[in-house]
Amino acid sequence: MFHISTLDQVKIAYIGGGSQGWARSLMSDLSLDERMSGTVALYDLNFEAAKKNEIIGNHSGDGRWRYEAVSTLKKVLSGADIIIISILPGTLDDMETDVHLPERYGIYQSVGDTVGPGGIMRGLRAVPMFAEIARAIRDYSPESWVINYTNPMSVCTRTLYKVFPGIKAFGCCHEVFGTQKLLAEMVTNRLGLEVNRREDIHVHVLGINHFTWVTAASYRHIDLLPIFHDFCAHYAESGYELEGESWKDSVFRSAHRIAFDLFETYGAIPAAGDRHLAEFFPGCYLKQPETWKFHLTPISFRKQDRDRKQKETDYMAQQKRGVERKASGEEGVNIMAALLGLGELVTNVNLPNQGQVAHLPLDAIVETNAFITRNRVQPIVSGALPKGVELLAARHVSNQEAVAEAGLTKDRGLAFQAFLNDPLVTLDRQDAEQLFDDMLSKHQPIL
Amino acid sequence: MFHISTLDQVKIAYIGGGSQGWARSLMSDLSLDERMSGTVALYDLNFEAAKKNEIIGNHSGDGRWRYEAVSTLKKVLSGADIIIISILPGTLDDMETDVHLPERYGIYQSVGDTVGPGGIMRGLRAVPMFAEIARAIRDYSPESWVINYTNPMSVCTRTLYKVFPGIKAFGCCHEVFGTQKLLAEMVTNRLGLEVNRREDIHVHVLGINHFTWVTAASYRHIDLLPIFHDFCAHYAESGYELEGESWKDSVFRSAHRIAFDLFETYGAIPAAGDRHLAEFFPGCYLKQPETWKFHLTPISFRKQDRDRKQKETDYMAQQKRGVERKASGEEGVNIMAALLGLGELVTNVNLPNQGQVAHLPLDAIVETNAFITRNRVQPIVSGALPKGVELLAARHVSNQEAVAEAGLTKDRGLAFQAFLNDPLVTLDRQDAEQLFDDMLSKHQPIL
Amino acid sequence: MFHISTLDQVKIAYIGGGSQGWARSLMSDLSLDERMSGTVALYDLNFEAAKKNEIIGNHSGDGRWRYEAVSTLKKVLSGADIIIISILPGTLDDMETDVHLPERYGIYQSVGDTVGPGGIMRGLRAVPMFAEIARAIRDYSPESWVINYTNPMSVCTRTLYKVFPGIKAFGCCHEVFGTQKLLAEMVTNRLGLEVNRREDIHVHVLGINHFTWVTAASYRHIDLLPIFHDFCAHYAESGYELEGESWKDSVFRSAHRIAFDLFETYGAIPAAGDRHLAEFFPGCYLKQPETWKFHLTPISFRKQDRDRKQKETDYMAQQKRGVERKASGEEGVNIMAALLGLGELVTNVNLPNQGQVAHLPLDAIVETNAFITRNRVQPIVSGALPKGVELLAARHVSNQEAVAEAGLTKDRGLAFQAFLNDPLVTLDRQDAEQLFDDMLSKHQPIL
Amino acid sequence: MFHISTLDQVKIAYIGGGSQGWARSLMSDLSLDERMSGTVALYDLNFEAAKKNEIIGNHSGDGRWRYEAVSTLKKVLSGADIIIISILPGTLDDMETDVHLPERYGIYQSVGDTVGPGGIMRGLRAVPMFAEIARAIRDYSPESWVINYTNPMSVCTRTLYKVFPGIKAFGCCHEVFGTQKLLAEMVTNRLGLEVNRREDIHVHVLGINHFTWVTAASYRHIDLLPIFHDFCAHYAESGYELEGESWKDSVFRSAHRIAFDLFETYGAIPAAGDRHLAEFFPGCYLKQPETWKFHLTPISFRKQDRDRKQKETDYMAQQKRGVERKASGEEGVNIMAALLGLGELVTNVNLPNQGQVAHLPLDAIVETNAFITRNRVQPIVSGALPKGVELLAARHVSNQEAVAEAGLTKDRGLAFQAFLNDPLVTLDRQDAEQLFDDMLSKHQPIL
Repeated sequence: MFHISTLDQVKIAYIGGGSQGWARSLMSDLSLDERMSGTVALYDLNFEAAKKNEIIGNHSGDGRWRYEAVSTLKKVLSGADIIIISILPGTLDDMETDVHLPERYGIYQSVGDTVGPGGIMRGLRAVPMFAEIARAIRDYSPESWVINYTNPMSVCTRTLYKVFPGIKAFGCCHEVFGTQKLLAEMVTNRLGLEVNRREDIHVHVLGINHFTWVTAASYRHIDLLPIFHDFCAHYAESGYELEGESWKDSVFRSAHRIAFDLFETYGAIPAAGDRHLAEFFPGCYLKQPETWKFHLTPISFRKQDRDRKQKETDYMAQQKRGVERKASGEEGVNIMAALLGLGELVTNVNLPNQGQVAHLPLDAIVETNAFITRNRVQPIVSGALPKGVELLAARHVSNQEAVAEAGLTKDRGLAFQAFLNDPLVTLDRQDAEQLFDDMLSKHQPIL
Repeated sequence: MFHISTLDQVKIAYIGGGSQGWARSLMSDLSLDERMSGTVALYDLNFEAAKKNEIIGNHSGDGRWRYEAVSTLKKVLSGADIIIISILPGTLDDMETDVHLPERYGIYQSVGDTVGPGGIMRGLRAVPMFAEIARAIRDYSPESWVINYTNPMSVCTRTLYKVFPGIKAFGCCHEVFGTQKLLAEMVTNRLGLEVNRREDIHVHVLGINHFTWVTAASYRHIDLLPIFHDFCAHYAESGYELEGESWKDSVFRSAHRIAFDLFETYGAIPAAGDRHLAEFFPGCYLKQPETWKFHLTPISFRKQDRDRKQKETDYMAQQKRGVERKASGEEGVNIMAALLGLGELVTNVNLPNQGQVAHLPLDAIVETNAFITRNRVQPIVSGALPKGVELLAARHVSNQEAVAEAGLTKDRGLAFQAFLNDPLVTLDRQDAEQLFDDMLSKHQPIL
Repeated sequence: MFHISTLDQVKIAYIGGGSQGWARSLMSDLSLDERMSGTVALYDLNFEAAKKNEIIGNHSGDGRWRYEAVSTLKKVLSGADIIIISILPGTLDDMETDVHLPERYGIYQSVGDTVGPGGIMRGLRAVPMFAEIARAIRDYSPESWVINYTNPMSVCTRTLYKVFPGIKAFGCCHEVFGTQKLLAEMVTNRLGLEVNRREDIHVHVLGINHFTWVTAASYRHIDLLPIFHDFCAHYAESGYELEGESWKDSVFRSAHRIAFDLFETYGAIPAAGDRHLAEFFPGCYLKQPETWKFHLTPISFRKQDRDRKQKETDYMAQQKRGVERKASGEEGVNIMAALLGLGELVTNVNLPNQGQVAHLPLDAIVETNAFITRNRVQPIVSGALPKGVELLAARHVSNQEAVAEAGLTKDRGLAFQAFLNDPLVTLDRQDAEQLFDDMLSKHQPIL
Repeated sequence: MFHISTLDQVKIAYIGGGSQGWARSLMSDLSLDERMSGTVALYDLNFEAAKKNEIIGNHSGDGRWRYEAVSTLKKVLSGADIIIISILPGTLDDMETDVHLPERYGIYQSVGDTVGPGGIMRGLRAVPMFAEIARAIRDYSPESWVINYTNPMSVCTRTLYKVFPGIKAFGCCHEVFGTQKLLAEMVTNRLGLEVNRREDIHVHVLGINHFTWVTAASYRHIDLLPIFHDFCAHYAESGYELEGESWKDSVFRSAHRIAFDLFETYGAIPAAGDRHLAEFFPGCYLKQPETWKFHLTPISFRKQDRDRKQKETDYMAQQKRGVERKASGEEGVNIMAALLGLGELVTNVNLPNQGQVAHLPLDAIVETNAFITRNRVQPIVSGALPKGVELLAARHVSNQEAVAEAGLTKDRGLAFQAFLNDPLVTLDRQDAEQLFDDMLSKHQPIL
């Protein structure tokens, strides 16, 4: 059982607790929340990084939360109420292989962490890590709630369930929020109404992570689909940039031209950023990012960014500085509060399919809205995807199952079959085999 | 499509609009709601009754709603945004046969409208009525939302979907509210905390109508199951009466002894009134209502009650008096508002199973929480019933399917097979056949 | 893998190898088969009994088969190609409790080994035995084919799969053969055609063990259903006895009046003996066996029979006499030959539902025809039962799942819930509880 | 009901009865069968062609079968026991577009009738034809058995079931026979044993049409998989030609190199000809047919072949000559005989998935063995495909569903989405759109 009886001794376990990104958001958001207090245990393969976050965490907020770096999975998990998994499966050098090596064969990837050759390799690396985590959770903290933020989301979360079927895990991703923001601006733009919060835009969302689709959306009593239709037509060519967010200024931004283009074909709003969407449509966008007004994120950028953050971290730790108390825009803390009984929440999460998405296989990890309340995360039955989208999603669902299976059983043949079946791999089998071997050889042995 | 663009021209269609009970609650609640206005069209086989409600309705509230009795299904349905079905399938004389004729064979029923010989007969009467309504909705108003309040809930709602698979219908029942009220009083009684509204008690509820079970419940961060365990032990013998509600004072009340008794056996809280629950457990409670502190509702009572209300109605219509503006405690108006886009709501409804209840057949009508928002009612995936309860529920699910099928195809053989399979029918086949024939012969031909 | 490469070194493992019935049939049939030879290992809790069968077996036939009594599950299973399980779960004294103790409460049972209070108790006793066997097969012989003959068939076979999901097991029962014989005689009786073998009557059979139904039957190009209709009408009152088989002469015989009676109600031919069928219809036949021309088999008869066979066995073992070489009419040896690659066979078997019976739950043990060939037993997709029959079968399927689960987890509460849900248990809950406790107390502790 | 009571008045309806290929095989095989007699009604859009077959048929055999060309679907279907559908959906000019137009974009196809741009276009043409046939069967002969031989098999058969769910239809294809022949020769080649008939090679076959796989095979008690492994290794490079069948001599032949190559990757034997298999693996074989020792069948060859047969037909009709009485090697007549009650048969057929193939969607048309007996065709539960094969099959299953749906609803958008999702379409979306439009414009309007 889930034994929360007091809200002032909550224990959060953070796997990947040396993180310089999401960990800081958590610190901010926890410092702003007035309802809970307790301990955040930080575990990271890089213990030093966790230690620095311990210092930073303990200087953030008003002391209601105590941060502690710990050195083993057993320590971080024991007694945890909520477990966060937010790790980088491998190094940025690995990611360089994932993203850039396939370019030699003419395969471009804008992110490389979900599907495509990069997503598959990353998945194969992540599976044994998640298997180890799942076994540790089963042994040390089987009743805790587990929130996964790691990509590839579907493969990682599926692995948790395959290894420990009794786990209470789900995956969270903020891509849908971006679509809500876009729709909120659209309401202002087209109807002249001010929307207070992106949550006020109700979206009926379903699909698989980074390939989720909004088939109904509303603001109060207003149906937003017809308005989006019009909005789309208006901005199809020029694109639309969120207020103050020029797409050129950041590798993570776009002008939503891909979303607009796909809406025209499929009649539903794709609810992920353009750079994620692009990877699901080989031969459409990836070779002309400028035209489509989005970016392929180079790993060199990620390395610079890491180094910059590293310096900042060192400085903060040395100076014993905490984070700013500023809402991050993430939903994690609200979700934790809901799980502890502080209110109810409906938001999009990744869970094994129990019928919430029609036609996709049971047990596959799918993304839909879920109802979150004390000690419960229940997916909301969401019907079927538009047929043409379903065709594409189903293929990745099969692949993700194969990657999880191949990673768990070290089945190189099956991993290659999944690789070959990835839409981005438009190569002869021989070339595909060469690429697969090359990529694998760059990593420490994973199969 | 569901074309609400303004909230001041809402059209509600009421089938059974001559009602003297639920129709009045609706009038009260609409008069209190400030968000919507429009028309309530009243249709009833008894046009005079609808006409009287037209008068009463038009004298209730501040005139934001116009009531109009109409004479055909086509008229009531055309242009409706929301359709309410709340009819009595047959007469109180029919119900007298349902409930009291089986007593000759030693079969007692406390309500007789859901399962048992009475529930089955009522179902067989209702199916052709619901088939006609479903066809009319398909023809005149296929995009409207349909809320059914009529029993037998599962059979009636299943019929709507069998006849018009595209229907947007669900069934509502207030039995679960009673359990929330009981738990709210328990929180005060055991923990000394005041609960403002029964909705603040969160219940994880699943099952089939009048046989729903709460397998998790919470108030804020507090798990209510262990507390109920203790509460139950304390009041198992004496029973517990809701504040100001002596069980002896009304045929609809009880001291919850049956709920307490079942909790002990099954470990989950049955979320329906004792008089409904009793009918699912032949040989346990029905022969000793006094001991178990509940009532078998005699039809003579219903007739007196009807006559009393009839007089009141005549008086109000003559005097052109409206209803009191007092919240009825029903949720109907809030549900309608949510469907129109005015807020979101999570509450228990009856819908075809799409996976929300594990192990029960797909398409069977099951009751779980659902998420209601603009133009959407989505069941929340709710897992499985406790095994022992599932055994019992599954049997009724099969029976309900058979009754709906038999009613639609006029298959007397199948109807009898369902009758024979009802747990309350603990008779020799010959006696069962005799009873079945006797009961059928009292009704106008339905098979 | 299943490593048969020669057919002269086949190893058959017989669990329950001290049997005085089916073991002798096997000896006869093996001695008549010319295609295979090898070893039959006999394992029995009563080692002496196995030893006697070793002697008798080794004096049966022409020496192609060597019989050997062994003392452990490991020995009997290791290296086996085919494993037979034919045990008595408990003693005849246990069976006396199963069958006769409920009579005090007015519950009569004609066999008491499948459903009813007796079937459930027998199931609860059998489950731990089958769990032990399943684990031993997993450990010592996971690729062998396992044929179960033990009742309650569905519960025992389900247990094998629950404990070792990779098992290659199925259950065999000869009840359907009786129906084929009846139909063969009918063909002669009504059409004047001689049928050579009961296998020439093709039956489309589906259901659960001892509650299987024939919904289509043919002899060559002739549809037998309309003829059965006529046959039934003719013999409904008098009954029909197979040639030379007066129903009065044996507790195992009947005049098929129950089968005829049920055909009239359900439109399909029940394919099990009347004494099995009767137990599925409480309140119909069990109180008037004379009228319906069948027998309730008293355990005193079984005890006499056992004693008689015991004497015969002792005599044969002492005299070193083998069995007569006479076909038993059982199909076991043909099934084994087919599994080894000697021909193909279509016959009825019990297997986990993978879709072969529509509407019944996946994984439940159901009985249908299957196609048997080298190293394969594949169920044949057989559609749905008549609705009224399905209602009844579904209830037992749920119960069987609950009994297997209760037996494995020692869950007394769940076992009682299944007991209470059995159609033969038409008692008040208190009486049912009393009976359940009484029955359980007569056995060595099983829950 | 299926009213065969005599076997001498059988009526076979042949849709596509002007055929110069399969119709002649039927005439031969019927003339050799001694068990049945009756009428063969021939219907063809080209009435003259049917008329010529009437003449040829009536001069074939001993007069037990009467052939009659008829001019309407109503006439051909009324009173039929068995209906054969073997049509060419469109013309050879259409097929030229299907196969050769995509070559402009570098897309080569060896057959072009199943998958790929050609298969999809052919499917879109066939769907309305099959919809019309299905409606006619529903109206004029709903109880007849329907055997489809037309490609694309899965799309055509699915259409029959979508339009008339009660149809008794299945699809037959002889590709698996070729694999049985290959295995039979292998048994001789490797083991020195003579195999009498290809049917003596038992194959466990599953998949979708033209992409079926043998995951177990045996000859008597011998497991053929390990032997195939060895055989494969031996002939991987050189290929293996069936006795007397040099691959160079016919566009329909191959040296099985593709089958050998795929066996190595997937561990199962692909059970279709190499030219069908090649189309499921873009980028592997189609660009080097010489190397892989198979042919891309040019439509010019088909046209010559048609003209040659045309002359032969005209000659036979003029001269009033019948066909030779020589077994065709097809199984059609045996299947008909089995359906009429003359023996049982296990062979591979295409049917809606009811569980016979695990993991593929229910209702999709899949190919497995089935058990055929009087008035019944029941698929045999066959488990799952190897995972890597399943990935590929699942994609086509989704596509086939989309093509059938698009053809029925004239949904050009959905048709294009399926086109884009076909593995052979490795083009940019713009190029794909161009090709799709070009191909569609060559046909009379079908969407």
